[in-house]
Order: sequence, then structure tokens, then C-alpha cells
Amino acid sequence: MNHEEQISRTPFPNSKKVYIDGEIHPIKVAMREVILSDTKLSNGGIEKNPPVTIYDTSGPYTDPNIEIDIRKGLPRLRENWILDRNDVEILSEISSDYGQTRLKDETLNHLRFEYLHQPKRAKKGANVTQLYYAKQGIITPEMEYIAIRENQRIELINEQTQAMQCQHAGHSFGANTPKSKITPEFVRSEVACGRAIIPNNINHPESEPMIVGRNFLVKINANIGNSAVTSSIEEEVEKAVWACRWGADTIMDLSTGKNIHETREWIIRNSPVPIGTVPIYQALEKVKGIAEDLTWEIFRDTLIEQAEQGVSYFTIHAGVLLRYIHLTANRVTGIVSRGGSIMAKWCLYHHKENFLYTHFEEICEIMKQYDVAFSLGDGLRPGSIADANDAAQFAELETLGELTKIAWKHDVQVFIEGPGHVPMHMIKENMDKQLEHCHEAPFYTLGPLTTDIAPGYDHITSAIGAAMIGWYGCAMLCYVTPKEHLGLPNKKDVKDGVITYKISAHAADLAKGHPGAQYRDNALSKARFEFRWEDQFNLALDPDTAREFHDETLPADGAKVAHFCSMCGPKFCSMKISQEIRDVAAAEKGMQEKSEEFIEQGKEIYI
Amino acid sequence: MNHEEQISRTPFPNSKKVYIDGEIHPIKVAMREVILSDTKLSNGGIEKNPPVTIYDTSGPYTDPNIEIDIRKGLPRLRENWILDRNDVEILSEISSDYGQTRLKDETLNHLRFEYLHQPKRAKKGANVTQLYYAKQGIITPEMEYIAIRENQRIELINEQTQAMQCQHAGHSFGANTPKSKITPEFVRSEVACGRAIIPNNINHPESEPMIVGRNFLVKINANIGNSAVTSSIEEEVEKAVWACRWGADTIMDLSTGKNIHETREWIIRNSPVPIGTVPIYQALEKVKGIAEDLTWEIFRDTLIEQAEQGVSYFTIHAGVLLRYIHLTANRVTGIVSRGGSIMAKWCLYHHKENFLYTHFEEICEIMKQYDVAFSLGDGLRPGSIADANDAAQFAELETLGELTKIAWKHDVQVFIEGPGHVPMHMIKENMDKQLEHCHEAPFYTLGPLTTDIAPGYDHITSAIGAAMIGWYGCAMLCYVTPKEHLGLPNKKDVKDGVITYKISAHAADLAKGHPGAQYRDNALSKARFEFRWEDQFNLALDPDTAREFHDETLPADGAKVAHFCSMCGPKFCSMKISQEIRDVAAAEKGMQEKSEEFIEQGKEIYI
Repeated sequence: MNHEEQISRTPFPNSKKVYIDGEIHPIKVAMREVILSDTKLSNGGIEKNPPVTIYDTSGPYTDPNIEIDIRKGLPRLRENWILDRNDVEILSEISSDYGQTRLKDETLNHLRFEYLHQPKRAKKGANVTQLYYAKQGIITPEMEYIAIRENQRIELINEQTQAMQCQHAGHSFGANTPKSKITPEFVRSEVACGRAIIPNNINHPESEPMIVGRNFLVKINANIGNSAVTSSIEEEVEKAVWACRWGADTIMDLSTGKNIHETREWIIRNSPVPIGTVPIYQALEKVKGIAEDLTWEIFRDTLIEQAEQGVSYFTIHAGVLLRYIHLTANRVTGIVSRGGSIMAKWCLYHHKENFLYTHFEEICEIMKQYDVAFSLGDGLRPGSIADANDAAQFAELETLGELTKIAWKHDVQVFIEGPGHVPMHMIKENMDKQLEHCHEAPFYTLGPLTTDIAPGYDHITSAIGAAMIGWYGCAMLCYVTPKEHLGLPNKKDVKDGVITYKISAHAADLAKGHPGAQYRDNALSKARFEFRWEDQFNLALDPDTAREFHDETLPADGAKVAHFCSMCGPKFCSMKISQEIRDVAAAEKGMQEKSEEFIEQGKEIYI
Repeated sequence: MNHEEQISRTPFPNSKKVYIDGEIHPIKVAMREVILSDTKLSNGGIEKNPPVTIYDTSGPYTDPNIEIDIRKGLPRLRENWILDRNDVEILSEISSDYGQTRLKDETLNHLRFEYLHQPKRAKKGANVTQLYYAKQGIITPEMEYIAIRENQRIELINEQTQAMQCQHAGHSFGANTPKSKITPEFVRSEVACGRAIIPNNINHPESEPMIVGRNFLVKINANIGNSAVTSSIEEEVEKAVWACRWGADTIMDLSTGKNIHETREWIIRNSPVPIGTVPIYQALEKVKGIAEDLTWEIFRDTLIEQAEQGVSYFTIHAGVLLRYIHLTANRVTGIVSRGGSIMAKWCLYHHKENFLYTHFEEICEIMKQYDVAFSLGDGLRPGSIADANDAAQFAELETLGELTKIAWKHDVQVFIEGPGHVPMHMIKENMDKQLEHCHEAPFYTLGPLTTDIAPGYDHITSAIGAAMIGWYGCAMLCYVTPKEHLGLPNKKDVKDGVITYKISAHAADLAKGHPGAQYRDNALSKARFEFRWEDQFNLALDPDTAREFHDETLPADGAKVAHFCSMCGPKFCSMKISQEIRDVAAAEKGMQEKSEEFIEQGKEIYI
């Protein structure tokens, strides 16, 4: 196949890639700039509309000046940042037995990524995690990159939007959310205290630094990966690039089918965002799907295999303890986490404690040599409204809190996975308990879904819960696609899931009063009110769909400047009338004065 | 055209229409019963799953035993209930001048509904509103119908689900939400105090009674109607039937194009749910779209014209006062309500107070003769995040509160329209202020949209706000379709909007702990856990899409009983493993005992 054809990389309409220089380190931070048209004033004059800068996860794919060859992988942005720290060694060969076996298997040559790199690992006794650096007081290039990126050029925003900023913005900032510009030092301090993590394995230098923490922009994760039933390597690579294009901040490769090792290599080498996995899935494949045959040795080798490929966070279900399994006895939907059910089965079969729990410190020793972060899995999360917030779920959460402390002792970064299926009135309890039991480590939830009755629409049932828990302080939202509970998502499902979760994450940023979050809303609303249709489309999360929907009824170019759309027609457009009103009013005493007068009069209404 | 072909009326899969008898009145309440398959137990036995009864707005269309002819209209369910009260007179001809003109215009014969009925009106001095009856202590057939309908056979629910009811259900009941069965007397008392309304014009006897109030199931409205740019009568009738099929509790006909009068007649005669309108739209058509040419006389005639056709609620923008208009001067999006902008323009042009406000008592006199309810319009609602909760919006809200008292003085039913565009952290303030200023009259909001940046997905940006405000106490949610801000919704958009809003409304019912709301979730989740795929599809809000998504990857019939789907494949299905776990566990000491033991031990976790 021609790999090029597979990959979506056309730039966004009226947008260009811009690069902002670092001040501490020689770095260039990629952002997307949307160029806007001028406003035509009723007095015949024009008003310039400054470009809008947008946080951009699409990577080099949307920069026409960068050559892309997915057989070679993306440029290795962080390679020198890592080497310059002089704390890693380059291995002559990969360390995992399984990796070696796959490498020597010639029947896999046609699948294998051609330009393999030698893996890096911390020098003996060294710790290469961002948490370790942060605790030493070191501001890494990764941290500065993140600070610049999170600001989205807030200095411009503040100049440009003072006039139009909603008086309510900032009402309810999250704990410690900076009221103004985010500094590299603030990033360091949040990482140092464990309140935020930077997932970026030293073996994934292609990835652009990003941060997960409740005092930063709410992030979203997109799950991809093949299953035994469907999908190919090419499809999965394109799904990953596609998900990043629409806004995925991280990608989890949940492949459970054939050639997981090779699929992962292709995805990581071509991904501009950090990759997460659930290593137990591959370990289970290695024992032919028989959970009771899993061993610590096989799991350990899988961790090393994936760490040396460049996975930035591992979901580890170490909180599923033998004694908790019985708490799921009367549930409507039992255990719905794949990893959780696998470990539960292993525990019951052997009548032994979960080996992920008993070997937890050894896992930490491996993680810190590559800077892989823990995503402590909620193996006992509820799978239905009926099972929400029950004893099994919260017992596991307490254990995850204790494991967090152990990981931090090793300077390994940690975040905590959360539910699942939870009705609206029980969502906040999840956030509050997580902060309490897990010592403010970032929370990362799947939805939650707020009802069970809409299979086929669970991106929406969960977007409601996701927006709410994001507002309450959840740092990253794992998307749910329309195919949830029904089948493996295709490309369209992936896009629907990502856009839906960008909505939830942004709604949460607005509610938290994140500085600058409202800037894009205001710019789009201004374009809408001024009938700058093209600007409205281009500022939208999904410009293609916005334009397509508009053109369905009014395809002519003229309609792109018309002062109405097919919804209300020319005579009934409130915005058109509203502008006429302003002209009428301008003729008389200034509206502004009148309104001040009125407010002074103490709003006497009914006379 | 063949009207029959246009109409969607196939019953839902594995569902049948059932009719529950009244105890006070000789009424039959229509409901939908979903028949479920048996559960195959691991011991080889089977467990019966009782049918699930669902609140059903699809009307006679889903009853194969009822003959449908949209040229004649639906059976007139309430005709005798109304006549038996002996307080209405049957008019020999329609009272409005405009209606007469249209009737005599032969060029309209091909558009005109053939089987016109003589309009009914209250006898001189009589008041035919449900609010009037309620205050007299009368329990009408409409009230009993509603009580039976709201219960969804809760007596069955309670029997069947005691075991599986989530221990948390009921945590946060809405104020006065009945903890158990809803009685006809409870319905009467809620209507009597104005906390709930029953929109059902005596000239729309085809409509099935429904109630809007925060101590009942949260309702949703679907907007349809043509515009000058697109759509025909046939399309709009089918859109109405289609919207009811998927769960619309009321329909608003917002037509602004040609032949509004005739289009409305067709829709009302064929609608099983109450119809609402914004009369100012048609009044504006009568003055060729020139707002300043509007007069009280033209508007008055329009009210009578529509009341005699059977419209059950009128949106009246009587709260847009001359002195408030100036408060919108510095808004990002000015006035975005069509009716609001029309009235604002009229006020400014004439420098006079809004004639809907100055003639409000005369409007009440008309409403009570037909039992048309007020939907007091929020003409100054915010059209962007930047404009949310501002002085203009809340000034108007206070005026709506004063108008509510005037309407109640005339025993006219009232509910209050709300925003609009509001970020999550500012939603509750809207609900609280509305309850306070409008004396607990039901709230009816459009969304609210929680961000402006996703045109093409505003059904989702608003579903988040709608679910939240529904939980906080909003009684009815006006849907938003994916086409919002971009164009006139087509049939697919209408369905997407309705299903999305059913999700928000149901999520709110769960959060409020409405008795029985969780029953459907539990039944669907049980089916899901037991791999009763067909039952899972049939219990879904949209069985067609759920089945279609599943079959996309696993179309074979065998897959409908398979213990996995294409998402995880056979070896990775957590629910399959979870069931194996229960079998393993059953072999040892009972899980239940173990879990009790554990709880007694005080959850000692890390040893």
C-alpha cells in the first residue's frame, strides 16, 4: 500500500502553523493560528479581527513544510533534550525476550517497522522521570514547552479581549488555577507535588510535551487499537493521526488482536502525542488468552518490551485485590474493566493476591528507567448506573491511593483512572473521594456515562458526565465513541468521540475559568453575530462539518456573506434585526448612557 | 402525493401498545410495553424477565389496530371529556378575520385540510383552563390520565426491581418529588399551585394529556416548521410525527414561511402531543416582515386564529420592555431571540412600550377561553457565553415573574422560557433566580449551550447544560439539533435532537431520583451483562441505531447471542470473564458471605 495516501494531513482552513520560541531553552512550540476576516462596520468602515491561536495536537502533519514518511516516523523533537541530560544510555539491543523473538521472526518482516531505533534507558542508578527533575528544582525543556503551549499566547488574548471578556469569566477557578500566564516554574511545581504529570517516555522523542493536571487545560484521550475481530496496522496508524488531528491529547493503544508488538511500533513512531497501553492485554495474548496462565515474569517482560518502544503510561490494575472481588457479587454488571476482570479471574483461580500488587515496587523500578507513568486502573469501576459508587469501587480507590504514595517514593509519575457509569448526582462524590484518597494525583475518567439507556449514543450520555467531572477537577477525560458497548469504532466514530470530548473538556475549562478558554468562544460568537460565516466555520472544533451543514441548504458562495441562514430565513434572523436595532438606537441617545441611567434608577420595572 | 407513504408508524421492535384503565374516569392510558427474552442461568435453568413499560409519546401511530388517515386527522381522544364539562360552546364559524380570509381563498383549496371541525370556545363568563378546574378541586380526566402515565406502572416496577434497585436511587429528590406512586390528586395540587401546567387546548382534542412540572418526568420539546427558504407541509407533518415517535413531549411549530395557517392545521390535526407556537412570527408575516407595522389588532386576531385551531401554548415576548433594550448595547451577540428582536425593533421604532406588555390582561382574557397556556418568552436570553446571566436577561426575568402573577389571577396556565448560552458554572443561578422571581412556575429552557465553539454539534454542547438544569429543577427542555446556527433541521437532525434530549431528560430524572426512572437502565444493563443483545437493542432509546452499529461488524444472527462483540473480541470481554468469575466463586464459599466478612473486618486493606 502507499502509506502516504492513508494519512490525513491537509492543514485546517485559513489556518497556519506557528512556532513560538522558548526563553529558557532553545525550543519551538507548535500552535495553530486561525486567520480571520475584517468586520464591516455599519458606518462603512472596517475593524480588523486579530488571528486566534489554538492549542494544537495535530503535530507535524498539519505543517506543509515538514516531509512525512510514516515508514520512517516523525522527526525526533525531544531526542537531544533527553541526551543532553547525560543520564541515559543507548542500548545495543532491546532487553525483552519477547521483543527479541519478534525481531528474529522473519515471517514478520513485511509487518515490521523498517527504521527501528536503539532503545534508551536510564544509566545505572539514575532516575529519568520528570517528577524526579521537578523535585530537584530543574525546569526541563518539556516543562517550558508545556507552559508556552498552555498559555495559547495569553498575552495576546488579554490585550485583544479585555473589552469583550464576559464579566463572569473566572468566577470559579479550580484550586490554584493560575489567574494569568502559566509559568515554567508553575509547571515544575505542579509536577513536583504530584498534582500534574508529563507523560513522555524517553523512547518516544517524537511526542510533543503535554501535561495532565487539574490546574491546566482539561485533556482528552482517544482509545484506538485492533481486536481479534477486525482492523489492520494501517488503519490503526491512520486512526491515531486522525484522532490527534481532531484534538486527542493522548492515545491509548488497546490492541488485543494479532501483531500487537508491531502495530504499537508503527503507532508510536508516527504519533505526536504520548501513547498509553494496558500491558496485561498483551501479556494475556502471550498466554493464549488464558488468564490463570499469566505470570509475573511474562508481565515483567511485557513492561520492558513496551517501555523500550516508547509507551508513556501503563494502565496497571494493581488495586484489584482478592478480598475486593466478592464485593462485586450482587452487582447488576459485575466487573466491566477488561484488565480488572482478567486479574480478578487470576486471583480467584490461584487464591493468591494480585501479582501486580505484590510486585508493585519492582514495577516502579522499571518505570523510572524510562519515565513511564502509572495510570492506576480502576478494575472495579461500575458498569451500570445501578453499580455506581459502591463498596467495591471505593475499596479499590483507597488502595490506589496507597499505591500512589509508593510510586511517588520512587519518583514515578502517577494518575488515577475513574468510572465509568455514574448518575449526575453521584459524580462529585467520585471527584472528592479521589482527591482525598489519592493525595491530589490527577484523575482520569472514562465519561462517566450518566444513563445506560442509550447504546449508540454513549458519546453523548458520557459527554454530560465528562463535562461535569472536568469542571469538578478531573484532569483528563477518556473519550467514549458512539460504538461503545456495540462494536469497534471506525474512523467516523473516532472523530465523533474526539469532537464530543473536546466539547466536554472546553465546557469544563470555561466553567473553571481557565485563563483564555473563553477567548475562542467570544471570537466565534462575534463572527456569528457579524455574519462572517467563513470565520465561524474556521473557528469551530470541526470546520468541515459546520460548513457542510450550512451548505446543505445554502450552498451558494453568496450565502457565506448573507445576513441570514435557512433556519430562519431573511426576515426572521434575530441577529440581523438586532444589528438594525443598534443602528436605530445609535440615531438616538447612546444606548450605553441609557442603560447606565436605567441601572442607576434601580431597575424600577413595573410602574 | 400519497400521505400514507409519508408517515412513520411501524411499531417498535418486540414492543406492543398497552392501555391502562382509569379508576376515576373511563379513560385508557396508552403505554409501550417491551417484551424481553428469558435469562439462561449457568446452572441450565432459566429466569423470566418481565416486560418493561415505557412512557410513550408516539400516539396512535404505533398501534397497528388504529387506522391512520392524515387527511382526516387522529381520533379525537378528549372530545367528550371536554364536552361533558358543559362549559364550552361550539362556534358556527371561526372568529378570526384572517382565518375567514384564508378559508374563502379558493387558490388555497389544494393546501387546505379537508375535514375542518367547528371551533370550541368557553361559554360566556366560563373559564376552561385546567388551572381553573384544579383550583376548584376538580380532578379532570386529563389529570388522571397524567397520573397513570407518569407512573409507568410503578407498582410493577417496585415489585420487579427491589432486588436490583441501586442503593443510591432517591438520594437527591427534587423538591416534593413523590417518593412513590403519583396520584391524580397530586397532579391536581401541583397544577393548582402553578408549579405544573397541562398544555391542552380544547380545540386539540386529538392530543394525549401530559404535564410540565419539576416534580414529574422531565419533558422535551422539538421545534419544527418551515422557513421562507425551505420545506413543505407534508415534510412538516412527517417531522412532527417523527419527533413524537422518538420521544418529543410537545412540538413547537415555528413556521415562518408560506401558508403558515394551513401548515399548522395539518400538524395539529395529526399530532398526539400538544403544539406550541410563537404567534408574533405569523403576525409579522401578515405585515410582510416589517416589524414596525405590527399592531395589537393584528396580533390579537392571530391569537384567536391559532387558539381556535388548537395551539396549546403561545410564546409571548411580553417581558421585552423598551427600557431593557439598551442593556443589550455591549453584548457580543445582541438579541438572539427572533420574537425578542422583533418586539425590540417595534419598541424602539415607535418609542412605545411593548404592546404585548400593555395588552397583557386582554391576552389573558383570550387564553382562558380556550385553555392556551403562556410560555413567557425570554426575548433577551444570551446568545453567547459572553452574554450569559447579564443585566438584560435578569431584568426581563423579573418582569416575567410579575406577568406570571397576572396570568394566574385569570387562572391562565404559565411557564417561563429560559436560555440559551450559559457556561456550566452559571447554570444553577438561572434555575434559582427563575424559581425565586417566577414563583415556582415551571421553567422551560433552550439547552443551555455550554460553549459556543462547536457549530454542527450544538445538540451536544446543549445536552450537557440541559441535563444539568433538568437536574436542578427545569421542567421541560427545548431540544437543539446539530443544525443549530447553520440551517433548518431535516428529519435526521430532528431525530438526533430528540434522542439527545431524551438522554438529558432521563439523566436528570435519574439524578432527581424520580421513582422508576432507573428501572429501564437496570433492565438494559441486566440484558447487556447477560448478552441478551436483542433485549439491549429493544430497550434502547433508539433500537434501530443500536442494532445497526452492532451489526456493522457482526451481522450474523449468531452474534446476537454471542458472549462478546467486535469491540473486545471473544477473549477480552470483561462481562464474559466476569460471569466465569462468578461460576468460579460459586464453587467456593459464597461471595456474599465473604463480602460481609470483609465489611465487618472494617476494610483493612494494606497489611
